[in-house]
Amino acid sequence: MTDDAIRKSTPKSTPKSIPKSTRDGVSRRRLFGLAGAGAAVGAAGFAGGFGVAHAAEADAFDPARSSDRGAGDRYPFHGAHQAGIVTPAQDRLHFAAFDVTATTRAELVSLLREWTAAAVALTHGDTVGGGTPGAYEAPPPDTGEALGLPPSRLTLTFGFGPSLFRDAEGNDRFGIDDRRPRGLRRLPHFPKDNLDPARSDGDLCVQACADDPQVAVHAIRNLSRLAFGTAALRWSQLGFGRTSSTSRTQQTPRNLFGFKDGTANLKAEETRLVDQHVWVGAADDPKARWLAGGSYLVARRITMNIETWDRTSLREQENLVGRDRPEGAPLSGGTEFTPPDLTVKGSDGKPLLTADSHVRLAHHSQNDGVRMLRRGYNFTDGNDALGRLDAGLFFVAYVRDPDTHYIPMQTRLAARDGLMEYLQHRGSALFAVPPGVRPGEYVGQALFT
Amino acid sequence: MTDDAIRKSTPKSTPKSIPKSTRDGVSRRRLFGLAGAGAAVGAAGFAGGFGVAHAAEADAFDPARSSDRGAGDRYPFHGAHQAGIVTPAQDRLHFAAFDVTATTRAELVSLLREWTAAAVALTHGDTVGGGTPGAYEAPPPDTGEALGLPPSRLTLTFGFGPSLFRDAEGNDRFGIDDRRPRGLRRLPHFPKDNLDPARSDGDLCVQACADDPQVAVHAIRNLSRLAFGTAALRWSQLGFGRTSSTSRTQQTPRNLFGFKDGTANLKAEETRLVDQHVWVGAADDPKARWLAGGSYLVARRITMNIETWDRTSLREQENLVGRDRPEGAPLSGGTEFTPPDLTVKGSDGKPLLTADSHVRLAHHSQNDGVRMLRRGYNFTDGNDALGRLDAGLFFVAYVRDPDTHYIPMQTRLAARDGLMEYLQHRGSALFAVPPGVRPGEYVGQALFT
Repeated sequence: MTDDAIRKSTPKSTPKSIPKSTRDGVSRRRLFGLAGAGAAVGAAGFAGGFGVAHAAEADAFDPARSSDRGAGDRYPFHGAHQAGIVTPAQDRLHFAAFDVTATTRAELVSLLREWTAAAVALTHGDTVGGGTPGAYEAPPPDTGEALGLPPSRLTLTFGFGPSLFRDAEGNDRFGIDDRRPRGLRRLPHFPKDNLDPARSDGDLCVQACADDPQVAVHAIRNLSRLAFGTAALRWSQLGFGRTSSTSRTQQTPRNLFGFKDGTANLKAEETRLVDQHVWVGAADDPKARWLAGGSYLVARRITMNIETWDRTSLREQENLVGRDRPEGAPLSGGTEFTPPDLTVKGSDGKPLLTADSHVRLAHHSQNDGVRMLRRGYNFTDGNDALGRLDAGLFFVAYVRDPDTHYIPMQTRLAARDGLMEYLQHRGSALFAVPPGVRPGEYVGQALFT
Repeated sequence: MTDDAIRKSTPKSTPKSIPKSTRDGVSRRRLFGLAGAGAAVGAAGFAGGFGVAHAAEADAFDPARSSDRGAGDRYPFHGAHQAGIVTPAQDRLHFAAFDVTATTRAELVSLLREWTAAAVALTHGDTVGGGTPGAYEAPPPDTGEALGLPPSRLTLTFGFGPSLFRDAEGNDRFGIDDRRPRGLRRLPHFPKDNLDPARSDGDLCVQACADDPQVAVHAIRNLSRLAFGTAALRWSQLGFGRTSSTSRTQQTPRNLFGFKDGTANLKAEETRLVDQHVWVGAADDPKARWLAGGSYLVARRITMNIETWDRTSLREQENLVGRDRPEGAPLSGGTEFTPPDLTVKGSDGKPLLTADSHVRLAHHSQNDGVRMLRRGYNFTDGNDALGRLDAGLFFVAYVRDPDTHYIPMQTRLAARDGLMEYLQHRGSALFAVPPGVRPGEYVGQALFT
């Protein structure tokens, strides 16, 4: 029985008279058994926590929970690692960076607790509040625009920026700087970077990925709302199409250059490589043991000079990328998943994968063997005054250590990649991504205990 | 056999040597039978028209065309009316307004011809060029990011703004002002309008709707590219979730206020009402007979003060809307599709649908019986410096006559609707939407002949 069908079969008073009893605090897909829950919880109001503890408990311990049944379209929030990293990349993204405005450690921890509980509910396809009805005289606990929508494979992935540990004035606001991970510093200024501070950095981040953008936007909106008075949205980015596969089960998608992107990406199935290149190891960083099992998230908003690219010949485009366009096969031959052969030369004696081709420069053999797990998205944010689309790639990568796995490669690419002529890096951020959350814990708990 | 499977089974030379033959000009879903089409067409270059005539002909006359087989996920471009109006509203939107920079009627007509042919190809799920291969030494005819994606129910709907007929200086650039439709003037300044000229008006518009945003964005990008030198993008808007149903087969979606939106919308199945309220009649406007079978498109970018709304009690929210939130039933009683009863009073003797409730003010009984067909979308475009989401409703409505079907209602709503406290109208545009296109014609042809 669908949610709608249940609603339609629910007896209603006609006409509705005011005041009516509390309602609306329901599973997005199915009404909970609400016997005993119908009494008004009072005007708990906006900052009251919305009974989030219920949701956290139910997530772990109630297999009879209605939204746990037949939920093939959801990913569990709890686990050894956070979801949304090796999880097969969903189709849509809403990414948000926040600055913490509260000044005490207790307030920060309280926010992380609330976010965790809300994330459990949201990834279940439940409303914020996890089924706790709101009072009719109070604002609804959940903003409601995802009511009736399935979980849509929503994942919520949380990260901590360097400024959470030490702010711009050098203050350790929350007493955590002695545990700051070694690699967690602002990314350096790379050659040709043209960064907009309003699209860069941040104390906290949330990556919301889902197959339905309304579900992702709803999640960020409600997390932002829960943060009111504690943290404020600094920047956010919608992405409409994934540009990487993170599982062998997925087709390789295309970026706005029209090329398949992420063919050589790390895949979830390559567990040994993922362990080696994505997850922070237990012994990596003695000062930051809390990060073991976590990762680093690199975010770069890369604008594409689309109109210029679109006037470039197919030959030049393919040479710059190092792959053919129809299939994504390396120019050294084969099909999409044939490894590039950097040694093959053409009849003119020059390498088919030229010195400035992206495939060559990004190949792990040219980068001390390091690999990264990319999880980027195409974006389009309107146009400029000259009618040029503000579009490109919101690059997201997860790496074990930015000092070995991102900064050297990006330094090289920024200086030598022929594609740089068609790109502008406009936003930049680095976050430490805590490990997964166990039932009853909150995200990043080991940092604070 | 899938596109990918076909590609993988295609013999390839290994390694690829340069130059290679032309390729890449393929159906997005299936390779055409390309025998005889493999020869280079020469460096036709960027502005060459991309063999679009082929596509137009193929659309009409080639049922054996590969992309016509098994294409349950596409809507035909040709028809008595343009698609994208009564078509069941797709999930995603990319809307674009253009200013014509060319100065001659011949250039404008040429653009409309190219757009028409490209629209036929794109709505088929083909590349721009409709299967004509591009030259390897020239830019690809199609930008490529939708290669491998199905048509995704793409519709492309074209409109003409008042400034196409008479520009800001009063010039009739294209010799068409004597045929300007009576209702086609800039919309008036409504109470509380706070319009941004950079998000308003335009000589031409294209509404791209699809179930996959990458397909909609790809279409606008390629139409914008075809327009290079003739028309420039003025503004554009992505929408991630529909806010109206246009067919009885669809569930009513929710807007960012969390309420079902468009319950009372005109539906495609109500053909008598659609004829009465959406399509311009043959005798409506003797000076603009070319518009018969067309419509007017009203676009309004409405920002929602989401943070304020989210602090409003559920009681107040429901009273302002005039419907309950869980189900969308009118507060006068019943279920979602029960007609609102404006006369029912509560125990306090006041109407349950208050004088400032949206449902009452927008009800056709309060608006001389007029109805409109709404086709709006939720949007989120990042956030402002205070961390508030720039989000809301991109309102799109199709009406037979804006002077009777939109302006009076919006004047009333702007002055009296309680929801206005939570809204800001930031963009505004009106377009005349020509009737449907027959095979071999171009969109709006009757205006120019």
